[in-house]
Amino acid sequence: MDTLLTPDQLLDHWLGHRRLTRRTIEAFPSDDAFTSFSVGEMRPFAGLVGELLSMSVPTLTGVVSGEWPMEQATPPATRERALARWDADTERIEELWPQIPDGRFQEVDTAFGQWTMPVWELLFYVVDNEVHHRGQAYVFLRALGVEPPAFPDRA
Amino acid sequence: MDTLLTPDQLLDHWLGHRRLTRRTIEAFPSDDAFTSFSVGEMRPFAGLVGELLSMSVPTLTGVVSGEWPMEQATPPATRERALARWDADTERIEELWPQIPDGRFQEVDTAFGQWTMPVWELLFYVVDNEVHHRGQAYVFLRALGVEPPAFPDRA
Repeated sequence: MDTLLTPDQLLDHWLGHRRLTRRTIEAFPSDDAFTSFSVGEMRPFAGLVGELLSMSVPTLTGVVSGEWPMEQATPPATRERALARWDADTERIEELWPQIPDGRFQEVDTAFGQWTMPVWELLFYVVDNEVHHRGQAYVFLRALGVEPPAFPDRA
Repeated sequence: MDTLLTPDQLLDHWLGHRRLTRRTIEAFPSDDAFTSFSVGEMRPFAGLVGELLSMSVPTLTGVVSGEWPMEQATPPATRERALARWDADTERIEELWPQIPDGRFQEVDTAFGQWTMPVWELLFYVVDNEVHHRGQAYVFLRALGVEPPAFPDRA
């Protein structure tokens, strides 16, 4: 069958998004803006980043092992703490990715006792959720008068 | 090689996102909110939807044919007009998708004289851009006091 994309390409795509999200964290003008500013009573970006951190490595761990360790979402208290956790998770993702068993992407599994779908779709959900919440952070930045990082730039 | 996902699965994934974006358009409480409300001097959601409309079918047309017709982004004037254009494009996407030539996803092409990457990545860009801007519309809705549609629901 026609290859749509390879696992290596999907990893690179995800890592490109993670670099952009990292720059979005850096773009916040202060820790206070990062942890407290929001629009429409939404969670501030620190809260959204806490959610992203609680999903990415735990989901990939489940994809690799079939075990789904719940991790509580804790908002990072500063931009520096957020970036340190972000970078540690990126390293962990790069370690775990090659351990995804052959044939696993097309297996159906239930993540965290709740989300039943093919493994490729569980991974897409994690990336889509990052794009979704990062887009929201762009609005917070604009409302703060800050130009967000360029969306197409994933280097 | 291990199949990550099939073209049919990627189409279904995209159509799921399109259903959610459609519900996001419907969630705006008035045409005025849709075409005029924004945060931080951003384009209102009608402007963002105009951009999404100008990208999806033109990109898929380029993927199918190798020709890249530029289409100007015109913001829909009402929610009803937006939904009519959205639904017409969804139909067109369903018609065009099965016409993607074998082996095309891994070919590198330059979209609209500007974006050079493998075809799968051009398609991912269109979907990611939709997720990104729809996330922004969620903030606009929250700022308007409206609960956005449930993110995980793609039915």
